[in-house]
Amino acid sequence: MSETILEKSEGRVSYHDSVEEMIKRIREDGMSNAFDRYALQDKIRCKFCLEGLSCQLCSNGPCRISEKTGQTKGVCGISADAMAMRNFLLKNIMGAGTYSHHAYEAFRTLKATAEGKTPFKITDVNKLKWMCEKVGINTNQEINDMAIELAVLLEDQQIIGIEDKNIMIEAFAPKKRKELWRKLDIYPGGTVHEEQNCVASCLTNVDGSHVSLAMKALRLGIATIYNSQIGLEMVQDILFGTPTPHEVNMDLGIMDPEYVNIVFNGHQPWPGVATILKARTKEVQEKAKAAGAKGLRIVGSIETGQELLQRFEIDDVFVGHMGNWLTIEPLLATGTVDVFAMEENCSPPAIDMYAEKYQVTLVSVSTIIDLPGLDEKIPYDPSKVNAMADRLIELAIQNFKKRKERNIQPMVPKKIQKAIAGFSTEAVLGALGNKLDPLVDVIAAGKIKGVVALANCSTLRNGPQDWVTINLTKELIKKDILVVSGGCGNHALEVAGLCTVEAANELAGEGLKEVCNMLKIPPVLSFGTCTDTGRISMLVTALADHLDVDVSDLPIAVTAPEWMEQKATIDGIFALAYGAYTHLSPTPFMTGAPQLVELLTKKVEDVTGGKIALGDNPVEVANNIEAHIISKRKGLGLS
Amino acid sequence: MSETILEKSEGRVSYHDSVEEMIKRIREDGMSNAFDRYALQDKIRCKFCLEGLSCQLCSNGPCRISEKTGQTKGVCGISADAMAMRNFLLKNIMGAGTYSHHAYEAFRTLKATAEGKTPFKITDVNKLKWMCEKVGINTNQEINDMAIELAVLLEDQQIIGIEDKNIMIEAFAPKKRKELWRKLDIYPGGTVHEEQNCVASCLTNVDGSHVSLAMKALRLGIATIYNSQIGLEMVQDILFGTPTPHEVNMDLGIMDPEYVNIVFNGHQPWPGVATILKARTKEVQEKAKAAGAKGLRIVGSIETGQELLQRFEIDDVFVGHMGNWLTIEPLLATGTVDVFAMEENCSPPAIDMYAEKYQVTLVSVSTIIDLPGLDEKIPYDPSKVNAMADRLIELAIQNFKKRKERNIQPMVPKKIQKAIAGFSTEAVLGALGNKLDPLVDVIAAGKIKGVVALANCSTLRNGPQDWVTINLTKELIKKDILVVSGGCGNHALEVAGLCTVEAANELAGEGLKEVCNMLKIPPVLSFGTCTDTGRISMLVTALADHLDVDVSDLPIAVTAPEWMEQKATIDGIFALAYGAYTHLSPTPFMTGAPQLVELLTKKVEDVTGGKIALGDNPVEVANNIEAHIISKRKGLGLS
Repeated sequence: MSETILEKSEGRVSYHDSVEEMIKRIREDGMSNAFDRYALQDKIRCKFCLEGLSCQLCSNGPCRISEKTGQTKGVCGISADAMAMRNFLLKNIMGAGTYSHHAYEAFRTLKATAEGKTPFKITDVNKLKWMCEKVGINTNQEINDMAIELAVLLEDQQIIGIEDKNIMIEAFAPKKRKELWRKLDIYPGGTVHEEQNCVASCLTNVDGSHVSLAMKALRLGIATIYNSQIGLEMVQDILFGTPTPHEVNMDLGIMDPEYVNIVFNGHQPWPGVATILKARTKEVQEKAKAAGAKGLRIVGSIETGQELLQRFEIDDVFVGHMGNWLTIEPLLATGTVDVFAMEENCSPPAIDMYAEKYQVTLVSVSTIIDLPGLDEKIPYDPSKVNAMADRLIELAIQNFKKRKERNIQPMVPKKIQKAIAGFSTEAVLGALGNKLDPLVDVIAAGKIKGVVALANCSTLRNGPQDWVTINLTKELIKKDILVVSGGCGNHALEVAGLCTVEAANELAGEGLKEVCNMLKIPPVLSFGTCTDTGRISMLVTALADHLDVDVSDLPIAVTAPEWMEQKATIDGIFALAYGAYTHLSPTPFMTGAPQLVELLTKKVEDVTGGKIALGDNPVEVANNIEAHIISKRKGLGLS
Repeated sequence: MSETILEKSEGRVSYHDSVEEMIKRIREDGMSNAFDRYALQDKIRCKFCLEGLSCQLCSNGPCRISEKTGQTKGVCGISADAMAMRNFLLKNIMGAGTYSHHAYEAFRTLKATAEGKTPFKITDVNKLKWMCEKVGINTNQEINDMAIELAVLLEDQQIIGIEDKNIMIEAFAPKKRKELWRKLDIYPGGTVHEEQNCVASCLTNVDGSHVSLAMKALRLGIATIYNSQIGLEMVQDILFGTPTPHEVNMDLGIMDPEYVNIVFNGHQPWPGVATILKARTKEVQEKAKAAGAKGLRIVGSIETGQELLQRFEIDDVFVGHMGNWLTIEPLLATGTVDVFAMEENCSPPAIDMYAEKYQVTLVSVSTIIDLPGLDEKIPYDPSKVNAMADRLIELAIQNFKKRKERNIQPMVPKKIQKAIAGFSTEAVLGALGNKLDPLVDVIAAGKIKGVVALANCSTLRNGPQDWVTINLTKELIKKDILVVSGGCGNHALEVAGLCTVEAANELAGEGLKEVCNMLKIPPVLSFGTCTDTGRISMLVTALADHLDVDVSDLPIAVTAPEWMEQKATIDGIFALAYGAYTHLSPTPFMTGAPQLVELLTKKVEDVTGGKIALGDNPVEVANNIEAHIISKRKGLGLS
């Protein structure tokens, strides 16, 4: 990190003042928290694990690779390079598996909705028709029949083998990439099929080649984006509407202790939407009032929050978004949350102590979430989501009463930050008059030098929460590079005020500022969640196909400046297969594997046109990205 | 280990003299090998990894749990118990995933065969009909149509969700277990569905409860056995015949350097069978002779070898089985192997140096196997297995010529051990006159005290190769406990001479000796591979249902005295769900998680009736198993 930026972070745990404010209470109350646990763990890090040179797979292990003392291979014979890549592929599998699980939930929800079994409806009929056209489903039929056919096809596309037609890739991947992927033998089957191949490959004594393991990761990455992510996001658009830009409220200041507050945390919108629909009824609001509250509110947390934010206007019921996953413990410590409803990933496991201390009811609304101190578990079932919403409301009102009885003192940071959320390929095209030429023109003219897709989490490994994400983004927009963001990093930028037109005036370079003001857009386009990596790629694919060039020829880059969990790793791997310069920070656990590092940061460029770039210093990283973008501009004959 | 047994192991790397003989050459030739790598690794084991208290999943890590120095949780907040169970569940997933991959290959091979696309045929028509009846397929149709319908149904049963009917469990699980599993909410969907749920559950910040993670493992274990393993083994019976007992040849003495030798290693029979069929033709033998060899032979290695051994008589072409996975490097060092053909798991990754030194051609015959120094990769495709066999024969003959040109000096241990292989539920019933009563009678009379299913690998963690497996088995049969074995442990027992009628006379207790002589069976019934865990359970299920008791009431136990990889862990977890007393050695990496250890070794008994037992000393373990069996006999009113 550059010295000035680093200096400013001294003594902080987060970029965000609201979190800084809450950590004081958390510490005063003697609560264990991620920030202090990080500091403790930092004292006993394992060097072998950090370098990717530790394997715990089989009973002959655990093994470590240490060239110095002669342990150059594991007991089975595995090399440092293969060990580190296998460890990494296992993480990729977990990410891919979780996306495919989310997709499974989306597709069965669409089907159940079309069958009339949910409170949802087909909101974006045009998108349904468009999707059906893209994948070859007859659109000359009743809407619900079309939706059922689409849901079945999409779930089937997750499972298909290599001998089947990959309809999703054929419909959505860049033209030139498809050829390349076939040539490289990384044109995949469905996500589930590739997962199975990869899982079996990671077993002890199966795949001992780091090159082969890396190629399997690329295949899996491609399958994940096309056969799971894009389908699931499109289905969520069909059900709840395609995102369009609108102003929203961010940060902990949105919390009001006098309301019954239900927070939805995770990655999937179903119970959140169902509960918003219920909470908008007078009946529910009256019930909350009868319990002594001013009413009942819904709050979005991390990606679930972003899914809601993208598509629902802020109103009296849905009040906004709290931030990203490291803000969860601070949020619970505000003493304002009545139900914390969790699905998919990113519910930290030690929040039971917060639930007890600040009176929160913890509810799993998923088949996969569990943790110590959970108050109730309601496995998600699309046909029962209405009853789930009723139960959540009931539990929240009960909790509100207890919270008041126990006289829990609320403490809420004051700041509410405005942001513009809800960008999508359609929205960008809309702003450009439904054609890509204006974007091409401003890029060609150098007003926008290039585009960086930022998709990631939030970590403490490379500094305080969101420090690298926000500072890197500031550097990029200063250089007239437009940032398109998804994931917990996106919430960081929204909370930091970068998703506003004002941010363009204050922080962007002259060219980008001009474009932002002309189109009334922020210099950072909030494209949603980590799951929207696929959605972001759709914009890039449109650009590549429009110009009839390959993705690797475009003046673009990808960055995950604070990747944390395993979904981020498969997004990063996809970016590599997609042909993108892909910056990752923190450095993945593979530095002890020299041939693997060489492969992923250099050699792979000759194969896919993409490569991994490392670095934790926002200024240096921005300079490197800019240099890459400039070289690609030159390749296209642009100055 | 008891002192006498331990003393005898001093200075040895293996129970087997043939391996002891080869390790001398390996060391003289300066070759890296698993035995010496184990000794090296043993010097730098990580205590945290051994105890299950190390997590490398996310970028906030790697984390370690250390109560002593205050790191009681990971950065995310995960506890020791959940961390260790999550690590273990990840291994279970890898095992389940690999079995489901094997099943996928089996089902598509059956389908392709019925479509006339492979050199195989429906060998056991009765079994096909029986399976169809069991799963509700109309048997009043053409054989190939029936086979196709079965293949499609079985693959579908791997994928089904929880809302679908689990036809395989309904058809094959013990009556009383089905009720219990429903009550406990561990009655699963298909293996692939459960894998997806488990993978997503293992992501950072999803499931932080060791109890919930353990219950997911149980569900996954049940799915693995019923929705993958049993189907795939029955399909292999349908294709190549249900195993029947017959005499076979074991150990390295089967190798003859004057022949072209193709070794099939892994877990799946397809290319091995196709090549045996080809190699039996005069044309192929003539080709080999033209190259200066006495002919061309097929050798079975580890589980692939056992799959062949179970169903094919030893003859001039198929000459027998070399042993288990730790014998692979010694086998290659004999300088007699021309092609080492590998699929699925258990091909150690550092055999390239053996291939170079002793002139072996390394070929992957699978979509998943790769390793440094691989000479050729032919991904398995049922419709191309004939061409694959041709290519393997071609490569082997070429290699034979090179081996002679290079004047590679062979070194072959002399011993060939006889064994009786090929037991199955049908074969046991056959020996008993097609009813279970004679078995019940000898158990009731105490001639056989009980039955132990031994299914596992081979490891160096608890002593020399196969030391615990063989010594434990000797202790058990001495106590009149019949052993039914599968997996690499089974090859250990075959090579050690325990799968002979003579072994009963020399080593078994009086009661068991009498029964063995009466039925002309060994005291250890070779039931095949680790994949035959399901097959072994079918015998136990038949016994439970015949007596109308639950599995947990039977005088039986399961042992994995040398589990090594991840498939063994899911077999062990299934045994727990199945209600069996399940001995595991080495101790899994979870000793730092006190609540988890308590759950799996004690509390779970109140839930499933099974529990995990630990211990590395064959005498003590045998005593504990005997005590368990005696207590169950008492429960059934037997003395």
